[in-house]
Amino acid sequence: MATTFLPFPPPGPKAELEEGEALTPRFGPDGLVTCVTTDADTNELLMVAHMNADALARTLETGEAWYWSRSRRELWHKGATSGQVQALVEMRVDCDQDALWLRVRVAGDGGCCHTGRRSCFYRIVERTGGQVLLRAD
Amino acid sequence: MATTFLPFPPPGPKAELEEGEALTPRFGPDGLVTCVTTDADTNELLMVAHMNADALARTLETGEAWYWSRSRRELWHKGATSGQVQALVEMRVDCDQDALWLRVRVAGDGGCCHTGRRSCFYRIVERTGGQVLLRAD
Repeated sequence: MATTFLPFPPPGPKAELEEGEALTPRFGPDGLVTCVTTDADTNELLMVAHMNADALARTLETGEAWYWSRSRRELWHKGATSGQVQALVEMRVDCDQDALWLRVRVAGDGGCCHTGRRSCFYRIVERTGGQVLLRAD
Repeated sequence: MATTFLPFPPPGPKAELEEGEALTPRFGPDGLVTCVTTDADTNELLMVAHMNADALARTLETGEAWYWSRSRRELWHKGATSGQVQALVEMRVDCDQDALWLRVRVAGDGGCCHTGRRSCFYRIVERTGGQVLLRAD
């Protein structure tokens, strides 16, 4: 699977990277790019994850989000076991092509976080009286 | 400056990390956490950047976004020269505390990207006929 889009071309000069039409991801030394995933309708931030070239190719091939799990060190078809599959509505890339933005619709119960919440960002960082505390939203 | 919040406590066990009230950022081997910055009103994704402990402390202290510039290897008060200062409306942290979400209002001309655009994510990744092309939005 996912052979159509591999390998991605190597990044070119700055002008091509920033203004060109070619997707040339700048994978880091660990082979990963950062991936920001939001709800396609509300733009609510759901999660931040990582993709290697294979995960990115599979995401483009299938229209569903695949990531690289750094903790398990394996490809991760999001929702394969939980049913929380992320259907890709739109993918964007940033100026220097080291980050991707996935706008998705989440299947199953609509959750994203392994703690059971809809979003991984369920705590607000609050400054009160010189202290920092986390407050659940 | 920014001595109030330093150092951040070291990350505790999983239960505290995920459900506790303490901000205990899990800085990576490079000393950085990923930071996702969105428009506070629309949640539009503006940029993805990184913070070290000092940048995070300064952001909490001043209510304006500070990052660590990986390319310049220096602290970066966003907007200090461009006027595109990011006033912090809300900060959130994710389940395992290795990513931050900044909801901001951008001063100056409202831009974020060094190319002059409002957002760094100005190109859509399109799949057409087995090919991948970037299209400006």
